[in-house]
Amino acid sequence: MYDIIQAYNKTRGTTLLDQLKEKKPLFLCVIGVTETAKIQGISAAGENPEITDYTPPADVELLHLGKCKCIPGVPVTPSGIPTPALITMSALKLADIPTLVVSAGLKVKPHVPFVDLGGKPGRDIRTGRALDNAEEVLNRAKLAGENLAKTADYLVIGESIPGGTTTALSVLLAMGVDAKGKVSSSMPNNPHELKIRTAEEGFKASGVKFGDFADDPIKAVSTVGDPMQPALAGLVLGAADRVPVIMAGGTQMAAVLTVVKALNPDVLDNVAVGTTRWIIADKTADLKGLVAEIADVPLLAADLDFSRSRFDGLRAYEAGVVKEGVGCGGASMAAMLKSNGEITKQVLLKEIENNYKQLVDSKN
Amino acid sequence: MYDIIQAYNKTRGTTLLDQLKEKKPLFLCVIGVTETAKIQGISAAGENPEITDYTPPADVELLHLGKCKCIPGVPVTPSGIPTPALITMSALKLADIPTLVVSAGLKVKPHVPFVDLGGKPGRDIRTGRALDNAEEVLNRAKLAGENLAKTADYLVIGESIPGGTTTALSVLLAMGVDAKGKVSSSMPNNPHELKIRTAEEGFKASGVKFGDFADDPIKAVSTVGDPMQPALAGLVLGAADRVPVIMAGGTQMAAVLTVVKALNPDVLDNVAVGTTRWIIADKTADLKGLVAEIADVPLLAADLDFSRSRFDGLRAYEAGVVKEGVGCGGASMAAMLKSNGEITKQVLLKEIENNYKQLVDSKN
Repeated sequence: MYDIIQAYNKTRGTTLLDQLKEKKPLFLCVIGVTETAKIQGISAAGENPEITDYTPPADVELLHLGKCKCIPGVPVTPSGIPTPALITMSALKLADIPTLVVSAGLKVKPHVPFVDLGGKPGRDIRTGRALDNAEEVLNRAKLAGENLAKTADYLVIGESIPGGTTTALSVLLAMGVDAKGKVSSSMPNNPHELKIRTAEEGFKASGVKFGDFADDPIKAVSTVGDPMQPALAGLVLGAADRVPVIMAGGTQMAAVLTVVKALNPDVLDNVAVGTTRWIIADKTADLKGLVAEIADVPLLAADLDFSRSRFDGLRAYEAGVVKEGVGCGGASMAAMLKSNGEITKQVLLKEIENNYKQLVDSKN
Repeated sequence: MYDIIQAYNKTRGTTLLDQLKEKKPLFLCVIGVTETAKIQGISAAGENPEITDYTPPADVELLHLGKCKCIPGVPVTPSGIPTPALITMSALKLADIPTLVVSAGLKVKPHVPFVDLGGKPGRDIRTGRALDNAEEVLNRAKLAGENLAKTADYLVIGESIPGGTTTALSVLLAMGVDAKGKVSSSMPNNPHELKIRTAEEGFKASGVKFGDFADDPIKAVSTVGDPMQPALAGLVLGAADRVPVIMAGGTQMAAVLTVVKALNPDVLDNVAVGTTRWIIADKTADLKGLVAEIADVPLLAADLDFSRSRFDGLRAYEAGVVKEGVGCGGASMAAMLKSNGEITKQVLLKEIENNYKQLVDSKN
């Protein structure tokens, strides 16, 4: 009855969808930056790597204000394709879902309220010293998760961190999950070789080998991770004791899932991964395989389809550009669930197109 | 049926108490600092005025962690009387009420999650240039209030800002409320003369006279206010459209109420002031008179009574030390309401005493 695809663990997925029907979610977006994103070719930042410092704050400004303040226009790929925050914003607005931004470590602060967890921007993982205070950030996030879980029937937690699939790859490898060739990319041509080489340089610098940190997720993220990972894991650990949590993202969530599992496998009973059809359909990656290897949690995907959109910038999503981010899949699912299916993928696309048009018009 | 005193507008107060019975609150604590607190004799900081920078973060650490991290022990008056955060923490814990800290402008960051509104510490009001970006902070707070109102049946919003009754006095005067001799103090001997002199120096420096900013609350707080005021007012303005809001504090809330009224009087239909019996009983101040002059909102007070406590440090509250702060009156009321009266003032005192003992024991 919903435009939601069940990609893994359909039994638990069905139970969860029943449970969340018409319930009240709280949407969180964890933002952070890592110098890893500035490596040439890693992220879709193109010619100006410094722009990756602005993408996460700009994304959450769009969520809250319907426009960005720290940059002109909105975040786009080098070919001009708009940020998935446009989808998230449209879904949250349609379904009147409350939203809270969580900073895991930023260089540029958003011009909207955000929860500060005391985190700092991440270093290039090739240093082998990515994060300084991952444990403290995780503990503070846990405290926030415990409190926020009391304010909603369930949480949907997305992320925005450029370079995040590379740091996901390296953390997965450090924790013994064979993720080579399985993480996604916001670009149609997934630069697996470059990502693997980057992870391996981090391993070399820190003297770490595959699986060394299988039981020490704090060391894994501190060595070759990014700030989003301990923050998002902490929120899940704090909240999922009390309410269901949808981890809203693509292959980055596999790394967070591994961290959560290593710290408290019991909470996984209350966790699902929520993404987009574009991630499930991505032949250059394998989120389903990663999730299946890590935990028996449901993998759900919003059945978004932009192939008939009247805008080129949206139809491009069908060619494998962007695919996921800012929790757009999970937010879309939450909008469908909260409205008991009244918000379909068509209704959502129409809202996205309206918002897209407004943004394009206001730019001109 | 509750240990709650109705001090003003009993009709609306009774309706509100009925409406909130067994409902789910969210407790917010707005923290900030102002250099005004460092004026000798203004606050209870005693010999070391720099300690006022640590009080608000220490208070919210106590709320979240049951102990402070940025200071040893807990905030105390010069005579060793513990912070009212002890009461708030006990009430929130007993009634399992979710809590979120909001920073309006700090020098020392708490070791717990907090919502950042982009605010900065306030200058000494004698400069006549207290705040730089009050409007931006108010607008961000409004956005946060709008979102958080969707996560709870009602909000209870407290504050912790040393020196806050002096900045309340000056803002009230700037907005045309005759507050001389009516604001409270955390000390038994309320230094009214000093507060008035401080406000007048700010007026002189800025060329402002009584009532000049009656219709311009942003200018009032920017000239002679403190960072908590626009932040708390923004939260109320954002939230009270949708859910009831209890402004949890003493005479500082009169200043915030004036700001709220000047910007959107309609939301006052959904607002009450919640304080403690000690404030209502305070012969050196007149919260009831202030509220009555400003708006027809209910004034409620948790009927806290420490006269039979087994601890000197708590019995001191009956002598007029501390009286209010960290939303302790509003949080106590919320605990009573949420538990449908099962949490009485006796039950609460027992919990406060247990927590007090633990803190004293862990210190020794």
